[in-house]
Amino acid sequence: MNRRVTLASRPNGMPKESDFALEEAPDPEPGAGEVLVRNRFLSVDPYQRGRMSEARSYAQPLQIGDVITSQSVGEVAATNDPRFAAGDWVVGQTGWQELAAARAGTLRKIDSKLAPPTTALHVLGGTGLTAYFGLFDIGEPVAGDTVVVSAAAGAVGQIVGQLSKIAGCRAVGIAGGEEKKRSLLEEFGYDAAIDYKNEDVAAALKAACRDGVNVYFDNVGGEVSDAVQRRLALHARIVICGQVSQYNNAKPELAPRMTNLLVVYRARMEGFLITDYADRFGEALPRLAAWLREGKLHYREDIVEGIEKAPRAFIGMLNGENRGKAIVAV
Amino acid sequence: MNRRVTLASRPNGMPKESDFALEEAPDPEPGAGEVLVRNRFLSVDPYQRGRMSEARSYAQPLQIGDVITSQSVGEVAATNDPRFAAGDWVVGQTGWQELAAARAGTLRKIDSKLAPPTTALHVLGGTGLTAYFGLFDIGEPVAGDTVVVSAAAGAVGQIVGQLSKIAGCRAVGIAGGEEKKRSLLEEFGYDAAIDYKNEDVAAALKAACRDGVNVYFDNVGGEVSDAVQRRLALHARIVICGQVSQYNNAKPELAPRMTNLLVVYRARMEGFLITDYADRFGEALPRLAAWLREGKLHYREDIVEGIEKAPRAFIGMLNGENRGKAIVAV
Repeated sequence: MNRRVTLASRPNGMPKESDFALEEAPDPEPGAGEVLVRNRFLSVDPYQRGRMSEARSYAQPLQIGDVITSQSVGEVAATNDPRFAAGDWVVGQTGWQELAAARAGTLRKIDSKLAPPTTALHVLGGTGLTAYFGLFDIGEPVAGDTVVVSAAAGAVGQIVGQLSKIAGCRAVGIAGGEEKKRSLLEEFGYDAAIDYKNEDVAAALKAACRDGVNVYFDNVGGEVSDAVQRRLALHARIVICGQVSQYNNAKPELAPRMTNLLVVYRARMEGFLITDYADRFGEALPRLAAWLREGKLHYREDIVEGIEKAPRAFIGMLNGENRGKAIVAV
Repeated sequence: MNRRVTLASRPNGMPKESDFALEEAPDPEPGAGEVLVRNRFLSVDPYQRGRMSEARSYAQPLQIGDVITSQSVGEVAATNDPRFAAGDWVVGQTGWQELAAARAGTLRKIDSKLAPPTTALHVLGGTGLTAYFGLFDIGEPVAGDTVVVSAAAGAVGQIVGQLSKIAGCRAVGIAGGEEKKRSLLEEFGYDAAIDYKNEDVAAALKAACRDGVNVYFDNVGGEVSDAVQRRLALHARIVICGQVSQYNNAKPELAPRMTNLLVVYRARMEGFLITDYADRFGEALPRLAAWLREGKLHYREDIVEGIEKAPRAFIGMLNGENRGKAIVAV
């Protein structure tokens, strides 16, 4: 039987484990043009919270009883498409389940000799691509710029800081807690780091960004982002990647209107979705792989064992408890 | 003696006439390289409110006793620069005063045979240039787009709607009151108009923008802009020209956080200042003049007589009482 994690009820605020169900279903049969994938690693990402709400967003919401959508890495168990062979490692949007039948065109083969297969879930996959296109395409950093990153120790933030350094910029990371702050400086090459839980963010930003913030890569929103917006440099670019501080609010948080700062600083704020860049992944992945090989990109994984632990890992990630890319080993 | 309007006290919220003083000072003497201008028309614009506050912004705040800064149109009374002759009509940042000594390089000669000199204060001057660069450079409209404009009957908004039509777009204007709404449809060529004071803005936007809003040219901010942001089309551009609904707030208004909508719609929000485009005015002014000659641009002026009326005209404009570009005839 195929074990899978489904949505049991729509979370109200922060999800609870009881919002999820572990179910068993008959093994799926791959149809014409489909591939049967035995998932080995499941990805745990903030965007999944949005799919659990009914609210209109960029993707259809999950229905109660649906398997939780996710990127997963697995091995081909059977195939009705000649491009794949049994034993191939693949990555695709195959969800939190042990076995998935997926259309061949939605899967990407990965070279497990080049890098561990789990990297297809982060530095050589979704979070790496998100960091790459968000920073370079929307943020348009120029060598010498100061790039500030929120949730800088998170799966995307780690990479954004390192890509900023590769691009000749100064990287300033914001994260919660002394341990994360240290990892920004020691593991991920940030030039300066701010612990928003224990420091005055406005004062720390002022000290770390003497000439203002040229690029702000925002994963969190909320008051941390308000503080960064007050320190922009002229013609700053604000990349809206996520707003994880807001995802669990049943009603939008009230905050001071600051739009006029965009005029004061002639600044641009822009949202993006990595799925819009699908036809350019082939540009980014070889570069990310090369930087990884050259030792210019470091990563950290936070792997828990057992598909039944996925809901707990997801809740922990929303609480900032993970210490690297959150992954579930099946 | 030179009559002039100065800042008597910093306004607290909506300005009062007592925040201004009408003073007399000795006639200024033009120095080397300067031109003495006898002002005939003074401009009244929302941005002046910002200069009266102490808060950090893109320009130095006025000090108590300073002449109110403004664009003004006048005739050259005396000149120490060979590029100007007595009797020339000029426009420059010469303030709310009868006589001004200005550096020659800060003045622009205007051809009063081409169009009335007052047009240098709007359609062939600041507001026309603001509409042109804000719409075309930041908004990047594509023929067929729906362009929504707030404060659409205001000095900038009138022109944005007409430029949108010239660019092959559908123009939807938002203004306050039945009379302004009518002028949008009958005078300024808007395809649809919304009276935010008497209509449900969200419902009216839904009806007027079936395929969403591709470009939002925002002059007001506040709840009107919140409603527009909920109706964006994918990859929408939000041009932040002004936030006049917020200028008189002693403290920032609290509002629901909506930044995540920029991700949902992959939208861009960008502020701009017309002064940054000074080296491109020569591109825009001949085009605006040609469209004016061809009857493609209409304008309305709201001229009050007497420099002593300038504070009253300014307060009226902030209250939305003007019915065209607010101008004071000296």
